[in-house]
Amino acid sequence: MNHPQLTTMARIDVIIDGEHIPTVRDLLLEAGAKGYTTLYGLSGFGHSGPHEGRPLFNDRNTLALLICVVPTQQVDTIVTGIRQLLDEHHGVVFVSETQVSRADYF
Amino acid sequence: MNHPQLTTMARIDVIIDGEHIPTVRDLLLEAGAKGYTTLYGLSGFGHSGPHEGRPLFNDRNTLALLICVVPTQQVDTIVTGIRQLLDEHHGVVFVSETQVSRADYF
Amino acid sequence: MNHPQLTTMARIDVIIDGEHIPTVRDLLLEAGAKGYTTLYGLSGFGHSGPHEGRPLFNDRNTLALLICVVPTQQVDTIVTGIRQLLDEHHGVVFVSETQVSRADYF
Repeated sequence: MNHPQLTTMARIDVIIDGEHIPTVRDLLLEAGAKGYTTLYGLSGFGHSGPHEGRPLFNDRNTLALLICVVPTQQVDTIVTGIRQLLDEHHGVVFVSETQVSRADYF
Repeated sequence: MNHPQLTTMARIDVIIDGEHIPTVRDLLLEAGAKGYTTLYGLSGFGHSGPHEGRPLFNDRNTLALLICVVPTQQVDTIVTGIRQLLDEHHGVVFVSETQVSRADYF
Repeated sequence: MNHPQLTTMARIDVIIDGEHIPTVRDLLLEAGAKGYTTLYGLSGFGHSGPHEGRPLFNDRNTLALLICVVPTQQVDTIVTGIRQLLDEHHGVVFVSETQVSRADYF
């Protein structure tokens, strides 16, 4: 699905405890991201890792979702950084292909 | 867009009346999903089906969004189950390709 | 990722000041969209354009996210309309491929 007005980029969704959003934000901005959007008050359950023995999320309302769109070449650096954060704190990160209309904004 | 650290999975977004979220959740967990995230308080309009004769959503704040990431081989079972639920209740389901960094969590 | 029960469509995410959501909604419905979902209360930062000299979003809670799924042939008209709106107001639009189970609803 390629449209002439649009440029392919990567959409990064991070779901993590709201208290860690500032850390994710700093990591993204240091990696070159130019913006992000956050949403607080999510709840969730599960995604328990094999080494955890307990649920990652446990139906609280303290989760936050951060959405960030970046050029695809920034994905590896950002994912490496977020993985290190997720080794210490519960959370998940998804990377999806998306297209934007004003590539110079990202 | 494939990154060496990432594994392709399916992201399932369900938008439905908040009261039906427990049913969707049970359906997902029975199909093998290991976690989900929910968000309440959405509003919406439309998506009226040809057999309905009235709007599916009518700008209320009782809608909820459930996001769930699963291995792609679970999609058919999950979509079949959610379609049966959506035959009885208003709502929509979207399935998108996404990539995750820790495949063993999903 | 193609499943026999599913039809490929375009998911449009618009993040914009909540006050402009009615304009986006009218634009979508005029372009043939049959429904949308909105979520208020997001915050964000950045995506400052090269001609702006100031942040597009500045960590307020007045942002809204509108999600709309449409047949792919509607994307060009919708993106053209939203770009015109975004020339006057801060905001971003992302277009992603997604799949739906009931194509006649969109």
